[in-house]
Amino acid sequence: MSHSITPHTSRQYDWELEDIRTRVLVMGRLVEQQIVEAVDALVNKDVEKAKSVINEDYEVDAMDVSIDEECTQILACRQPAAGDLRLVIAVIKIVADLERIGDGAERIARAAISLSDREKPANVFESIKSMANCAAGMLRDSLDAFAHMDTEAAFSVVMQDTQVDAQHENILRQLITYMMEDPRNISWAVELTLVVRILERIGDHACNICEHVIYLVKGRDVRHIGLEGMEQIVREK
Amino acid sequence: MSHSITPHTSRQYDWELEDIRTRVLVMGRLVEQQIVEAVDALVNKDVEKAKSVINEDYEVDAMDVSIDEECTQILACRQPAAGDLRLVIAVIKIVADLERIGDGAERIARAAISLSDREKPANVFESIKSMANCAAGMLRDSLDAFAHMDTEAAFSVVMQDTQVDAQHENILRQLITYMMEDPRNISWAVELTLVVRILERIGDHACNICEHVIYLVKGRDVRHIGLEGMEQIVREK
Repeated sequence: MSHSITPHTSRQYDWELEDIRTRVLVMGRLVEQQIVEAVDALVNKDVEKAKSVINEDYEVDAMDVSIDEECTQILACRQPAAGDLRLVIAVIKIVADLERIGDGAERIARAAISLSDREKPANVFESIKSMANCAAGMLRDSLDAFAHMDTEAAFSVVMQDTQVDAQHENILRQLITYMMEDPRNISWAVELTLVVRILERIGDHACNICEHVIYLVKGRDVRHIGLEGMEQIVREK
Repeated sequence: MSHSITPHTSRQYDWELEDIRTRVLVMGRLVEQQIVEAVDALVNKDVEKAKSVINEDYEVDAMDVSIDEECTQILACRQPAAGDLRLVIAVIKIVADLERIGDGAERIARAAISLSDREKPANVFESIKSMANCAAGMLRDSLDAFAHMDTEAAFSVVMQDTQVDAQHENILRQLITYMMEDPRNISWAVELTLVVRILERIGDHACNICEHVIYLVKGRDVRHIGLEGMEQIVREK
């Protein structure tokens, strides 16, 4: 293979890089919608909506496989360097996080079905809905940060994660109180502890996506270095 | 860069590929040990051991970052093709799964500390220990399958996952029974539901690793195609 690049080849290559970026965003919007609908189905005891979330999970899975395949093709045929290589690696990793979020949405939808026949206190559901909105918001913001290559925006998503963690703790405490009041609450409340744990993990995945965005833009791996270390790298010119 | 390969360059390249393989195995052994020790600490109320698991998590994180960096270097400098490219991609993905398992071990160690001051029924702990052995065994077998590029072994790990899922269901039911018997059991039992959920996810990560092994050897993405589809691809000559 020649390393000289004809204008046509270069345009085609640019198009391929743009295509994986766009497809990540499309996959991200679908996954975000899956979370919101799964939680809606749970809160409104809407079994049909829960089933449609489960049925649509194959779309997320298909995107996972096909974006990965396109990334492998680019690595094999284009031998990308520097920023292009980081884009491909970041896309491979972001897609893995999105797939896991989609998986979480499916699990919430299954919980929605198994819990649909029971009356449960409205205030727990309000808390769960508010936590889901936060987690879905973090995901949306992390994808916006990716779309605009905006490391400041990525960093502010990471900082929001403590809020979702605090909501997780609060709802756990709420659920434990219901269990203590009446043993008949135990079985559904345990199922809801798993739901809120999934939502908490969605916040973590959004943070992972932001770390990949910072890696992509700054060329520095900011995982496991703490918030201060991350902030320093984001602020570096 | 020239595409002709001198013997020296080739030996160096072979060494690099061998090195990332070896380092994945070392990281895998460490992570497996972390799970076993975290669960030991939980079962034996051994706060010191739990703390050492938490303190050693930085080693897992450091391996995560450095193996990833070596993979990026190989992609940038060696422009690997075919099987070599699949090896690098599989390693990037396996490392991400291992990092999450290590994260789970740390969470279990934290639960071990917060639960260390309370008496709890021995039979729940026996069930949890047995489930942890299964999950750690799946991880070990998935890494052996990677070491020997053995797709049959990888497939049999994937088939074991239903056992871990069944143990998860059983222990959940056991825990719910304890909660119903006495409200004073609720708080620790809820914490243990999160521990067994982490163990269940470790089984899932071991399955992911096996899927990456099959991709590496067969060049086919076997995610999301079900056990039958996977078996067919494994058996293809």
